[in-house]
Amino acid sequence: MKFQHKHLLGLEELTREEIELILENTAGFKEIFTRSIKKVPTLRGKTVVSLFYENSTRTRTSFEIAAKRLSADVINFNVSTSSVVKGESLLDTVHTIESLGADFIVMRHSCPGAPQLLARKCRASVINAGDGPHEHPTQGLLDAFTIKEKKGGFAGLNVVIVGDITHSRVARSNIWALSKLGAHITIAGPSTLLPKPFERLGVRLSFDLREAIRDADVINLLRIQIERQRANLFPSIREYSLLYGLSEERLKWAKKDVLIMHPGPINRGVEISQSVADGKHSVILEQVTNGVAVRMAVLYLLSGGEENE
Amino acid sequence: MKFQHKHLLGLEELTREEIELILENTAGFKEIFTRSIKKVPTLRGKTVVSLFYENSTRTRTSFEIAAKRLSADVINFNVSTSSVVKGESLLDTVHTIESLGADFIVMRHSCPGAPQLLARKCRASVINAGDGPHEHPTQGLLDAFTIKEKKGGFAGLNVVIVGDITHSRVARSNIWALSKLGAHITIAGPSTLLPKPFERLGVRLSFDLREAIRDADVINLLRIQIERQRANLFPSIREYSLLYGLSEERLKWAKKDVLIMHPGPINRGVEISQSVADGKHSVILEQVTNGVAVRMAVLYLLSGGEENE
Amino acid sequence: MKFQHKHLLGLEELTREEIELILENTAGFKEIFTRSIKKVPTLRGKTVVSLFYENSTRTRTSFEIAAKRLSADVINFNVSTSSVVKGESLLDTVHTIESLGADFIVMRHSCPGAPQLLARKCRASVINAGDGPHEHPTQGLLDAFTIKEKKGGFAGLNVVIVGDITHSRVARSNIWALSKLGAHITIAGPSTLLPKPFERLGVRLSFDLREAIRDADVINLLRIQIERQRANLFPSIREYSLLYGLSEERLKWAKKDVLIMHPGPINRGVEISQSVADGKHSVILEQVTNGVAVRMAVLYLLSGGEENE
Repeated sequence: MKFQHKHLLGLEELTREEIELILENTAGFKEIFTRSIKKVPTLRGKTVVSLFYENSTRTRTSFEIAAKRLSADVINFNVSTSSVVKGESLLDTVHTIESLGADFIVMRHSCPGAPQLLARKCRASVINAGDGPHEHPTQGLLDAFTIKEKKGGFAGLNVVIVGDITHSRVARSNIWALSKLGAHITIAGPSTLLPKPFERLGVRLSFDLREAIRDADVINLLRIQIERQRANLFPSIREYSLLYGLSEERLKWAKKDVLIMHPGPINRGVEISQSVADGKHSVILEQVTNGVAVRMAVLYLLSGGEENE
Repeated sequence: MKFQHKHLLGLEELTREEIELILENTAGFKEIFTRSIKKVPTLRGKTVVSLFYENSTRTRTSFEIAAKRLSADVINFNVSTSSVVKGESLLDTVHTIESLGADFIVMRHSCPGAPQLLARKCRASVINAGDGPHEHPTQGLLDAFTIKEKKGGFAGLNVVIVGDITHSRVARSNIWALSKLGAHITIAGPSTLLPKPFERLGVRLSFDLREAIRDADVINLLRIQIERQRANLFPSIREYSLLYGLSEERLKWAKKDVLIMHPGPINRGVEISQSVADGKHSVILEQVTNGVAVRMAVLYLLSGGEENE
Repeated sequence: MKFQHKHLLGLEELTREEIELILENTAGFKEIFTRSIKKVPTLRGKTVVSLFYENSTRTRTSFEIAAKRLSADVINFNVSTSSVVKGESLLDTVHTIESLGADFIVMRHSCPGAPQLLARKCRASVINAGDGPHEHPTQGLLDAFTIKEKKGGFAGLNVVIVGDITHSRVARSNIWALSKLGAHITIAGPSTLLPKPFERLGVRLSFDLREAIRDADVINLLRIQIERQRANLFPSIREYSLLYGLSEERLKWAKKDVLIMHPGPINRGVEISQSVADGKHSVILEQVTNGVAVRMAVLYLLSGGEENE
């Protein structure tokens, strides 16, 4: 099977088979990390430009390492010092980057749909690295890969996502990927942060952590964004933590072999306790490692897969 | 013929033959862009340091991609976090960069003549990437290359440069290159922005757009720098646009096969209308692509040309 | 002999033999700089991440060039745009970097002991690029290498370090390295800036420049940090310069073949006069070049030395 897409904009538009193809390729690239020389010549002579309109050192770095391990050249296009501050339009910036010779544009933007808009006008492959609250497809893929690696598959698996689902691209990309792959999904949090329409996708809503994580195979804790806490959606960080923060004690409500996931960076003592973050159920750092492998697989498949080797 | 210069400081000091040699090499390097692996080992093991005292993501990125396609290592020397803020002199900074092992220093500075000063004290090759209003030689070269590619040559060609000529290093480098290559040059704009002494170089001045672009083969529109608009040189952006902005309608005043050029980033609706920027006469994005090729040619020739291969 | 350490945290914990091993390897790597292709494949497929909590373009760049000349991939982890500003702990940041695949973390931090703390929790090799006033081991090594290269050895050599010793990691790393290697060390400066306890390490204190540098083979002038001048430790920059600044005149107090060293960036006219900085005794720029070679040697030895080739 060959990957038919030129861009990776979201997981909503991928089929189950396409997602599975990416996960299979991820396993192959992860194997490279165990070698002494963690590098393959797959994308030699290709140029990957990262274009981040929101700060994110960890995602940007993950893409940079992935691209360099494929031997691509990586350019960090610094938005804050670029023509953007001179009033250049997003589309003109992207056309310039493309004309400079970019084969891939890895883009983060606060506006949902920005990468989709650009992809229609662009010969380079556009990879969405997060567009507002809409999607963050490589995060969804790395979460799926981590679950598959630890649990063997998705059929009948109970995955609970806890936090501010309304504003979370991570939640959306997880829901698209995991529901297609066959998992049962519950979203949990204060009622103000759980979007009702998700029920139509077969997602279960729960406002009670204990009820939500009973029978959970996987708990994915979202970051509470302290630095941009939305007014009045919940009373306080402290109250959120009291009701939905995952402690060692509460972990016992879930299955014995539950996985604890988090997209990072974590707020210790807010959505996750110190001991749970560092405990034996936590796969948070493995998610980081898998992120590099999944991004290598995405770059590889978008470039045309086997043909390019 | 061998390129005899160690530095590229301006086009004023190059002969017609030297400029032609760069343009010929540019064509060769541009051919590489059509290959599957857009990379050659020409400058492997060489180090290119970019030292930008003014922000310019697009020029810096163009040099970075050019250097990487020649397999050089590229270092972005971050002026804002460097010893410069600790009061180190420009010359000490450059001697440090040289001692770190730079083979090339690509430099932008607000002060005219700064690269010239350094070149005299420096074993590394200095490339001027813009020194105040003085010169921006690689921009002049990429403009010349684009014209040559589209028009076949320069003899008898009418090139009109529109905008704030007084403060434009792009205009100066264009004038030096194109007049040596045999084109007729007109500069057009408000009288406050056209320097009289250019007439001595054989440049024609025009304060009327219609009159200026009649018989034009090439129109090069300069960016009006909204973000640092100089007090009182013209009444307002809106008035500039009304008098000198190029619209679809006004384009008819020029020849049928006129080329529209712009160094970017463009101000849509100010010096150029939406439809002209994206229209069939526009070669603005090809200029961007040619910029990478011309910078590869410059790096190659400054490093000694064939000897280094 | 094989280098037994996984991290380079300070010179206090290295033996004389280990320091000598690094210096020997430095000579080998410096030889590469004379080749046409200044690059070896030693660390191909390895990833070096620089994590600087204090600005330092020159040290960061020196490590970057060193790593690239060993064919490693280099990632600049931008602290100011990273999760650090979202409140992530230092340890979580480092674990994330490690999980992203870093083989080396080159770290600068204002807090003494920060790299030591991390090294205990980290599978990647940690290199201290300066931790507050504590140590800056690669600076100490490059200073030792420069002295060895110029003087042939250390036995009986008189090295004088002038400046704010109390707050200087450069002084500390120099003292550890040079005293182990057999040099006699004098520290000179105002009494408020010379820590008494150093006498226990065999270091001589001197408050009088003339007396201090009589018989000096090497004078290492520290930078007076004008930008963060500590209140009341000395009356003024001007007075410091009058008492301890090294002029052409005062240079005559030292031996005829004295070496003048400075870790840079220099304050011309403060701790060093214009003519001494550029004079025949000065090896300041050679120190910069040697810094790249010493960092190549450190990266190479920490990666396991010969085994990895």
